[in-house]
Amino acid sequence: MSEHATDSNSSEPHVGVRPLMLTPDGRRLRLLDQRALPGQERWLELDEVEAVARAIEDMTVRGAPAIACAAALGLAAASHGFGDDPAELRRRVEAACDRLAHTRPTAVNLFVALAQLREAIAAEPAEADAKRLRAVLHDTAQRHVDDDLASCLAMGRHGASLLPEGGTILTHCNAGALATAGYGTALGVIRAAHAEGRGIRVLADETRPVLQGARLTAWELARDGIPVEVITDNMAGALMARGQIQAAIVGADRIVRNGDVANKIGTYTVAVLCKHHGIPFYVAAPWTTIDLSIATGAEIPIEERNPEEVRRPGGALVTPVDIPVRNPAFDVTPAALVSAIVTERGVFSPHALAHG
Amino acid sequence: MSEHATDSNSSEPHVGVRPLMLTPDGRRLRLLDQRALPGQERWLELDEVEAVARAIEDMTVRGAPAIACAAALGLAAASHGFGDDPAELRRRVEAACDRLAHTRPTAVNLFVALAQLREAIAAEPAEADAKRLRAVLHDTAQRHVDDDLASCLAMGRHGASLLPEGGTILTHCNAGALATAGYGTALGVIRAAHAEGRGIRVLADETRPVLQGARLTAWELARDGIPVEVITDNMAGALMARGQIQAAIVGADRIVRNGDVANKIGTYTVAVLCKHHGIPFYVAAPWTTIDLSIATGAEIPIEERNPEEVRRPGGALVTPVDIPVRNPAFDVTPAALVSAIVTERGVFSPHALAHG
Repeated sequence: MSEHATDSNSSEPHVGVRPLMLTPDGRRLRLLDQRALPGQERWLELDEVEAVARAIEDMTVRGAPAIACAAALGLAAASHGFGDDPAELRRRVEAACDRLAHTRPTAVNLFVALAQLREAIAAEPAEADAKRLRAVLHDTAQRHVDDDLASCLAMGRHGASLLPEGGTILTHCNAGALATAGYGTALGVIRAAHAEGRGIRVLADETRPVLQGARLTAWELARDGIPVEVITDNMAGALMARGQIQAAIVGADRIVRNGDVANKIGTYTVAVLCKHHGIPFYVAAPWTTIDLSIATGAEIPIEERNPEEVRRPGGALVTPVDIPVRNPAFDVTPAALVSAIVTERGVFSPHALAHG
Repeated sequence: MSEHATDSNSSEPHVGVRPLMLTPDGRRLRLLDQRALPGQERWLELDEVEAVARAIEDMTVRGAPAIACAAALGLAAASHGFGDDPAELRRRVEAACDRLAHTRPTAVNLFVALAQLREAIAAEPAEADAKRLRAVLHDTAQRHVDDDLASCLAMGRHGASLLPEGGTILTHCNAGALATAGYGTALGVIRAAHAEGRGIRVLADETRPVLQGARLTAWELARDGIPVEVITDNMAGALMARGQIQAAIVGADRIVRNGDVANKIGTYTVAVLCKHHGIPFYVAAPWTTIDLSIATGAEIPIEERNPEEVRRPGGALVTPVDIPVRNPAFDVTPAALVSAIVTERGVFSPHALAHG
């Protein structure tokens, strides 16, 4: 049972927006359409695996923990359409996991959630009926979501004191409530520091090409009363040189055995700038982000996305038509540039993860 | 007489687009509207000082050398509306210089060009008539433009061999034909290296917020057959880490006595990334960019521009309405991060400028 659930009547922290949940009948996944933010707060309801997979691919839902939660809840919801023959249902769960695993390659949390669902079904006796299997999918998916929220709250408790009193904190992309089951990873730490009265301010890198900082981080922090300003990604260096940034904290899509961190493109540049200016660079991520099966960051698959994301910021074409562009969606920050990693289990040196 | 004019029948290099010129009657400034590029090639004709000043402020014309040329030619054209009383004409030239000097504060070339015009008029005897004074303005302005083009061609000759054979060269903003009287500063060096068959490729930072790289550098290089790809500003670090960038070259808006360089916001981050990866970082600028009256970069005025430039990339609002944003248009790169400065007089260490 998650902290969130056990603590709902007392001093529960405000967790911010919750971007995904099941409908009360459990048959549809409700998703906040993050492509429409901040202009519009639009909710979608999905009941088929293919629709959930496309929502992950087109970034209707994004953020490593959130896509794992969406895949898990989405599969549980869609299983109501898998029929009442348990063997057939098991086959369709396998096919669904395969499809969902082929949406986005870089974040590992998705693969963790799908493995949890597969293992839960596999652990059921052969005579389990379809109703029973669906209940197992629902319980497993909901536990993944509850654990994610609980992890974010724990990261906030562990990490808040890292952020300097009265400091201005740089963040990149959106590692917030919107990127998780709620509360956020990097923004969870920021929420906790804010709630403790540390008087911090946030600078949000706009995060080209998809502008998650300008659109999402700005929206969710402003909504929750946390002071935030948006900068273009290329301003952080100049502001550091002027002494206007005291720490940086970001999320992660995958952290590997040697402590290297894959995260949204541009994260590596933030880390290099922090190193050059002697500013701490923190990563906040749930344990599901840590992939001990991979030795170094060089082995992490980096997704290349549609060039139109680069050519059309906000929708309007700004480059010459068909000009070649690059669009790697992630980069890898070597462990040597990471001051500490905040997890629900505590704060670790990136070099100590394999023993964490 | 400029190299361009003396060499027009022989092996003159292709200078790329020429973004500004007078109409044949000398009474109007023709400007390529750089706000409309790359979608539309629209030319404006201006005959009043206020219109020229606004074209500089709103970045219809931009680039440190080009705004100096536009101000000089624009004032010469507008002087036909200053009447035939020489004392009145002299007063209106002074007022025009004052107005044009209050357009954009960071680039120094503008102030150099205005000083040339003022000094040329001041050097005329008291009895000089209005026709004579207008002719002096025209000659002085055209000489500034011709010198600028000649300087760019010379920078190309001096700098081309700095760019490694077969290398991929990063540039930031647009320091090209569009930013000068033609040919370009940083892109002039790239043009020269390309013409020499060095087999280079260009990566153009898109250069938020005004997207000069995505819009202008991509347009002018593609137009002239020089291989170019666009990246978002936050991708350069990751590409350097992968060994995919061999040198960076940028323009400058002001270079001061100790060799510090003010240039488009984001330049400093490129320089820090180059330092971290052991990649040479070059600056190309005409001697008019060098301001020996200022000791260090900290004294250079940095223009803050309209926050809507950050909120609306390509025109569409991407942030929450009224979210606070920062918009410093320039940053300062310390001399220690600059490998060399390419000028029309040769290639200098940034530390040697005061003796150059």
